[in-house]
Amino acid sequence: MDKIFHPKSIAFVGVTTSNPFHWTRTFWESAREFQFAGPMYPVNPRGGELDGYKVYRSVDEIPGNIDYAICTVSAKIAPKIVRECAAKGAKAVHFCTAGFAETGDADVTELQQELVSTAREAGIRIIGPNCMGIYCPESRLSYDSGFSKESGSVGFISQSGGNSIYMIREANWRGVKFSKVVSFGNACDLNESDFLEYLAEDPQTKIIALYLEGVRDGKRFRNLLERASHKKPVVLVKGGCGEAGARATSTHTGSLAGNDVVWDTLCRQFNVIKPQNMEEMVDVLATLQCMPDFKGRNALLVGPGGGASVMLTDEFEKRGFSLPAVTDKIRDELLGFSQAAGNMLRNPIDYSQSMQDPGSMHKAIQLLTAWEKVDFCVGFFRPSQMTDGFLDMVRKADHLVHNAFDASFKPVTYIVECGITPTRQAIAFEMAQRIMSAGKPVYYSFAAAAEALRLVADYNRHKISKQ
Amino acid sequence: MDKIFHPKSIAFVGVTTSNPFHWTRTFWESAREFQFAGPMYPVNPRGGELDGYKVYRSVDEIPGNIDYAICTVSAKIAPKIVRECAAKGAKAVHFCTAGFAETGDADVTELQQELVSTAREAGIRIIGPNCMGIYCPESRLSYDSGFSKESGSVGFISQSGGNSIYMIREANWRGVKFSKVVSFGNACDLNESDFLEYLAEDPQTKIIALYLEGVRDGKRFRNLLERASHKKPVVLVKGGCGEAGARATSTHTGSLAGNDVVWDTLCRQFNVIKPQNMEEMVDVLATLQCMPDFKGRNALLVGPGGGASVMLTDEFEKRGFSLPAVTDKIRDELLGFSQAAGNMLRNPIDYSQSMQDPGSMHKAIQLLTAWEKVDFCVGFFRPSQMTDGFLDMVRKADHLVHNAFDASFKPVTYIVECGITPTRQAIAFEMAQRIMSAGKPVYYSFAAAAEALRLVADYNRHKISKQ
Repeated sequence: MDKIFHPKSIAFVGVTTSNPFHWTRTFWESAREFQFAGPMYPVNPRGGELDGYKVYRSVDEIPGNIDYAICTVSAKIAPKIVRECAAKGAKAVHFCTAGFAETGDADVTELQQELVSTAREAGIRIIGPNCMGIYCPESRLSYDSGFSKESGSVGFISQSGGNSIYMIREANWRGVKFSKVVSFGNACDLNESDFLEYLAEDPQTKIIALYLEGVRDGKRFRNLLERASHKKPVVLVKGGCGEAGARATSTHTGSLAGNDVVWDTLCRQFNVIKPQNMEEMVDVLATLQCMPDFKGRNALLVGPGGGASVMLTDEFEKRGFSLPAVTDKIRDELLGFSQAAGNMLRNPIDYSQSMQDPGSMHKAIQLLTAWEKVDFCVGFFRPSQMTDGFLDMVRKADHLVHNAFDASFKPVTYIVECGITPTRQAIAFEMAQRIMSAGKPVYYSFAAAAEALRLVADYNRHKISKQ
Repeated sequence: MDKIFHPKSIAFVGVTTSNPFHWTRTFWESAREFQFAGPMYPVNPRGGELDGYKVYRSVDEIPGNIDYAICTVSAKIAPKIVRECAAKGAKAVHFCTAGFAETGDADVTELQQELVSTAREAGIRIIGPNCMGIYCPESRLSYDSGFSKESGSVGFISQSGGNSIYMIREANWRGVKFSKVVSFGNACDLNESDFLEYLAEDPQTKIIALYLEGVRDGKRFRNLLERASHKKPVVLVKGGCGEAGARATSTHTGSLAGNDVVWDTLCRQFNVIKPQNMEEMVDVLATLQCMPDFKGRNALLVGPGGGASVMLTDEFEKRGFSLPAVTDKIRDELLGFSQAAGNMLRNPIDYSQSMQDPGSMHKAIQLLTAWEKVDFCVGFFRPSQMTDGFLDMVRKADHLVHNAFDASFKPVTYIVECGITPTRQAIAFEMAQRIMSAGKPVYYSFAAAAEALRLVADYNRHKISKQ
C-alpha cells in the first residue's frame, strides 16, 4: 500500500491533447503543477505530443516500467489496460471513469467483475472505478492543481471525489494540511477498510477523516475502526442516511448505505467524531489540527458585545457549554486597569471599549484565562454588523487584539462571522487569513464554531475517561 | 405611531463635527445619503457647521418645529432634551446612547425612570435608549448609509441594534426589502408590543420579523402575537436562552429573558416561524418573500450529482422531506430526449450531462414538475467542488440552466453552495447575484436551504390546516 501512495513513475492512460477539461488531463496537469519527480507517460491511441512529452499509443509502447497508472477509459477496455499495466510492472491502477457497477446495469457490472478478476490474476491493485484517486503532497501527486503542496497530518479516505475536492480545498484554506487523501469510488478492489488499515499505522497521519456512503465488509471495517480510534482521532461523515439518500449513494458509488442508527452507535462506541456534513467536518479538522486540547466545557467569550454576544452565548449554551460568570474579585481587578463599564466585564466579555488599548486587553486576557474556571477562550468578530467606520477601526486594531489573545493561558480560537455579503466577506477573509497564517483555528459562523467545539469537547471527554 | 415612522423634520442632537464614527454622525450621514426630504437640524453645544448646515447649540435654538429627534447624549441630560424637544413639537425622541438601565446601576436606572416620566408629562414617545432607532426607506430615514433605499414588505422589530444591522444587510443582499425596521433597545417607553401592534395593521408590511431578548408585558404581547399571526406570517428569533444568555441580554438591553420552552410553545401555538439564529432568519425571509407558497414536502432536487447530491439529499430527508423516486414512465420519456445515463434520472436528478443542452433540460424540468408528486424544485450548484475547467463551463451555461428552471410548474429555489474560500466564493456570489436579481430565493449552504424550507413548509402546513 505504501508503494501505491508513493509511485516513482506514472502512465496517464486516455489523456487527451484536445480537451483540457478531460479528467486524465486534469490529473496530468496537476502532476505537472506539483512537479512530480519521476517519469510521466501520456497514453492515447491517437499519439501526438502533450506539453513536449511524446504521447504513447498504448501502455505497451511505454519504454521501461511504470509503478502506477491513472486511467480514464471506458469499462469495456479496462481489463485490457490492467493486463498491459501489469506487464509494465505497475503495482496499482486508478480508474477515474464512471459508468461501471454504480449504473446498476448488468452488462457493465459484469465488466467491473472481469476487471477485478483480471487485476487479481495480474497481481495488481485497483483504485476505483468512478473516483479521483490519490492526493499525496509528499509524492507530488494530486488531482487538482490548486491543492496545497505542503504535507500535513490529516489522512482522508473519501468514497466521493466531489466531496473530497470540496473538503481539501476548504480545509487547506483553513490551514489544514493532508498526509494522504484517497477518493476510492466504487471500491471494486481496494476499499475503505484497506485504506483505514493503512492510515491507522501511517506515521505521517495523526488524524483520520472518512467520508463513506457504505462499507463492503462490515465486520472487518468495525474492527479496523476500533483499532484506528485507539491510535488517533477519527472523524467520519456518513452520506446517504434516508431512503432517497440510499438511492443517491447507490447511483453514485454503487454502495449500500446501511442504517443511520447503526453508524451513530458505532461512532459513539469507539469515540469517533461524527459531524453531520462536510462543512462541519472541515470545522472539526481545523479544530483538531490547530487548537491545543482543552479539558472541559467552560468557555470564555470575548467579543464586541450586544446582540452578537447574545447570539453566540446561545449557540454555546444550547450545546452544553458553560460560561462561568466572572467573579467580583476578578471584575474588580479588571476595573483597576480597564476603561470598560463594569457590566461589560462579565462573560461574554465586551472588548469593544478596550480594543484600542491592547496593553489593558493583554492584561485582561491573562487575568481571565489564569482563572481555573476557564477551559478555553473564544475571540469573536462580526464584520457583518459593523458600520464602515467601526470596521475600519477594527481592521486597524485586529493584530493588537490577536497579540492580546496570545497572552491566554488556555487554548484560544477565533470566530470571524463573515456573513454572506461580498464586501464584508472580503474583509472577514482578510482578518481570518492573518489568524490562520499564525496556525490558529478560525470559524465563520457562531453556530459552526460552537458545533465543532462541542464535537471536539465530547471527543476529549471520552478520551480522558478512557485513559 | 405612523408619524414616528414618517417624520417630516429631524433634529440630530449630540452630532459631532469632529468624530465621523460617532453614532449621531452616522445617523446624520445616513439621512443625507438617503436624501431625507424635510429639514435636518444638527445640534451640538459647540456650534459650528456640518456639511454646510448650521449646527445649533441647543434644541431651543432650532427655528421652527421638529417632528423627531435622534439623540446621542448622556443619561444625565436626557430628560432636559426631552423637554426641549417637546417644546418644539416633536412626537418622538430616539435615544441611541447606552449606559442606562442595562448597566444595572441604581443611579442611571433612576435617570431612565425620570426620562420616562418627563416624556409622559410632555406627551412625547421615546425609542430606546441603547438602540439604533428607525429604518424606513419610504421616509428616507436610515441608520446605515448602505441599507437598501427601496421599500419592501418585511417589517422588522429588533431589540438589538447590531443584530438588526446584520439582518438588514444580509437580507438586502439576498433580495429582501423592508417596509419598516425599528431597533428599540431598552424599551423604556415604546416596546415590542407597541411596534408589533402597529406592524400587524400596517398595509405596507406583509411579513413581520422579530428579534427579542425579552418582553415587558407578557400577556399583552401574547395577545398581539396571536392577532398578528392571523394576519401575516410572523418570524421570531429569541435571544438569550440559557443562563449566561440571560446575563448577556440583561447587560445588553436590560430585559428578562424568560424560559425558552415558553417561547417555543407560544410560537408553535400561533404558527409563528422560529428560526434558531439570525442567519436562519435571513434564509426564512428570503424564502417567504421570494418563493411562491408550496403545498407539501415532496422535493425534486436537480444538480451536479455525486457526493453533493448525497449530502443535499441527507439534509432534506433528515428534515422530513421526501424525494419521490421518478417513475419508470417519466424516466423513459426523459431518456427519449436526454443524453444522461438512466441512473442519473432518478431524484436527485443529475443535470451535469445536460447542462450544455438547455433545450432538453427545459423539457426535463417541465416534465418532472408537471408530475403531481413534486411540490417544489431545488436547483443546486456547488462551485467549491468544481475544477476550474468545469466551473468555467458552468459559469457560461448557468443562465441557460436558470432559463430551463423557469419552465417549472412548481415553485423553484436555488442553492449556490459557496464554501468559504475567497476564489470560489467570488464566483458563487456572481452566480447568486444573477438569480437574486430575478427575484428568486438563493441559499448558500445545503443545510441552510433545507432548514429554511422546513420552517416554511411547517408554516404552510399549519396555515392550510387552519383554513
